[in-house]
Amino acid sequence: MRYPLITLTTDFGLDDHYVGAMKGVISDIAPRARIVDITHEIPPYAILEGAFSIAQAWRTFPAGTVHVVVVDPGVGSSRKALLAQVGKQHFVAPDNGVLSMILREEKHSLRQITASKYFRKPVSATFHGRDIFSPVAAHLASGVPASQFGPRQEECVMLENIAPLQTAKNAWQGIVFKADRYGNLITNFPSGEFAKLPFEIRAGKKRISIFHETFSHGAPGEIFVLAGSSSYLEIVANQASAAQLLNFRGGSPLTLETY
Amino acid sequence: MRYPLITLTTDFGLDDHYVGAMKGVISDIAPRARIVDITHEIPPYAILEGAFSIAQAWRTFPAGTVHVVVVDPGVGSSRKALLAQVGKQHFVAPDNGVLSMILREEKHSLRQITASKYFRKPVSATFHGRDIFSPVAAHLASGVPASQFGPRQEECVMLENIAPLQTAKNAWQGIVFKADRYGNLITNFPSGEFAKLPFEIRAGKKRISIFHETFSHGAPGEIFVLAGSSSYLEIVANQASAAQLLNFRGGSPLTLETY
Amino acid sequence: MRYPLITLTTDFGLDDHYVGAMKGVISDIAPRARIVDITHEIPPYAILEGAFSIAQAWRTFPAGTVHVVVVDPGVGSSRKALLAQVGKQHFVAPDNGVLSMILREEKHSLRQITASKYFRKPVSATFHGRDIFSPVAAHLASGVPASQFGPRQEECVMLENIAPLQTAKNAWQGIVFKADRYGNLITNFPSGEFAKLPFEIRAGKKRISIFHETFSHGAPGEIFVLAGSSSYLEIVANQASAAQLLNFRGGSPLTLETY
Repeated sequence: MRYPLITLTTDFGLDDHYVGAMKGVISDIAPRARIVDITHEIPPYAILEGAFSIAQAWRTFPAGTVHVVVVDPGVGSSRKALLAQVGKQHFVAPDNGVLSMILREEKHSLRQITASKYFRKPVSATFHGRDIFSPVAAHLASGVPASQFGPRQEECVMLENIAPLQTAKNAWQGIVFKADRYGNLITNFPSGEFAKLPFEIRAGKKRISIFHETFSHGAPGEIFVLAGSSSYLEIVANQASAAQLLNFRGGSPLTLETY
Repeated sequence: MRYPLITLTTDFGLDDHYVGAMKGVISDIAPRARIVDITHEIPPYAILEGAFSIAQAWRTFPAGTVHVVVVDPGVGSSRKALLAQVGKQHFVAPDNGVLSMILREEKHSLRQITASKYFRKPVSATFHGRDIFSPVAAHLASGVPASQFGPRQEECVMLENIAPLQTAKNAWQGIVFKADRYGNLITNFPSGEFAKLPFEIRAGKKRISIFHETFSHGAPGEIFVLAGSSSYLEIVANQASAAQLLNFRGGSPLTLETY
Repeated sequence: MRYPLITLTTDFGLDDHYVGAMKGVISDIAPRARIVDITHEIPPYAILEGAFSIAQAWRTFPAGTVHVVVVDPGVGSSRKALLAQVGKQHFVAPDNGVLSMILREEKHSLRQITASKYFRKPVSATFHGRDIFSPVAAHLASGVPASQFGPRQEECVMLENIAPLQTAKNAWQGIVFKADRYGNLITNFPSGEFAKLPFEIRAGKKRISIFHETFSHGAPGEIFVLAGSSSYLEIVANQASAAQLLNFRGGSPLTLETY
């Protein structure tokens, strides 16, 4: 017996009826589906942050999961709709780069979603989350083969500047992907590459070269770096907000030097 | 095999334990029920906004769904509890107008909820969402016939001034139902009646007569109207907040003239 | 057929991917599990508020439910991980007092969680919600006996000062547990002990001795006390925020005298 599992990642917020309407459409097509929210609090139109959130969460889900990712400032324009397969999981999303943190790292196959017989009718010009992405995900999770939704495509829109830019033998330019709820500044420096070397991160005028294994090793008020659960270096403080202490946020530039 | 589906629309917010307690009560009575949140962020006591949210979402759900709608400033007073049937879906809610955007448009039958044997005991004076509406919904979704919950009633409390008021042959007074997360101002002018005519909407001193099919057709900074996914005219901007640009919000008055 | 039910109470918020990642881990291990959010909006590191929320919600859930409670400022330190059984429900949480409002009132048995074979690998230093508590809860809800997760322990960390302190024959010192969404100030004075006596609560310079059965009995602007759905006395106003009117919040001190 199938237990379809569908996740949702959007910038729709939780104040309006939009997420509820998507879940109604899914429940109508796939009555036994489990629907899991990754987050709906991606800031409006913030494709990079949406890309980060789904890239962090998808690996924890089982084979067969269908992920719906809707951060879609171009809704109703000529931007295409994308169906991506990575291993035994599927993703449906606007073709605007919101899947690119996954696709640049994982072997995948792509299709353009064109089969309007799977859409909710009439298709509105402004809410493809309800009218295209949710019903396609529900049919896919219910067993319709990916090949039914549209033709293969070779490439898709990819975000640039996601990886650190090497500027010298031991120097990189990077960014803060996002400040999380605790004010931890998640950088784009992969822990696997950088965590074992002595380093200095410069964030504005602040220089940070202290590394601790976990939050509780930090002294009160101390700003330091750890290898976060995100698999990136994070600039943090122990029970305090590094984002507030440094006045930094998602998109803030950083430099990193190793020694 | 039944797959009971229950939706929740409340003004309880997500910070407290209230929604969790409702879901516990439902899970205890209907262990296989799927529970879907429409929204819990209706502003406290805002019956009109609750009425709008459930009216937008319910149509996407399948036959058999039971909708719990609790925006209930009169909890513990003499206001009655309502069970409404519309097609093959049911609604349980305080009898205070929160279902009236659905009931004024759809054929329905009504019952007063009086059968206390289906309530959680003891019934508190302040949390009927947990003690009355959730258990009634769970029993209903599990197969108890609607007739068991109380006697038929002919009428219920209905909100007034939901529809635009025609003030001249080609002029109407209306309101903003709500500003959504993106700052789109959802009006009470139905798209089906107004979207195909040349028109001018006046919002304070601002006059708006530009109509576009979708967001991406708007120029930067341009405020315009589209036929939204809500089936009402919406006053919007492309990747910007019309609500902020106009300083308008839910309840703001509008006039519309056609030519 | 088992229908595993798992609840989540955390301070992770809903903006990030953290809750989604926990649900992925659970879904992978226990594909048929229902996952219910109590709340994720416990203020960061606020163990007392987490303790209050789960203590309010757990009783509404059926036998067999597993509750995951993660408010964990000491993650990665030497704090232990706790598995508690109360009746036929289980709780997994850091051993930091977050279960103490339940455990001081209910007969229980405790185990230390040590069986790393049930953990997600590698275990991060900073996200035990994903790597330890979620997988343990999923295995437990799927039928692994509690005895498999680690040895019995007799005691655990308990919060102090949860109960009112009697300072004279008819006088008590207490606190506000929290201000809820509506601005109701939930105190730590149990309704069962205090609601039937004439009393005066002093909150700063304000003295409150009016008791009403429910919100709608209050006059406009009147601040009064009722026996809330929480089973504690609550300082409230009718469709207004007592927290704002009194400028009080969670942790604010109170005194109560009976006559």
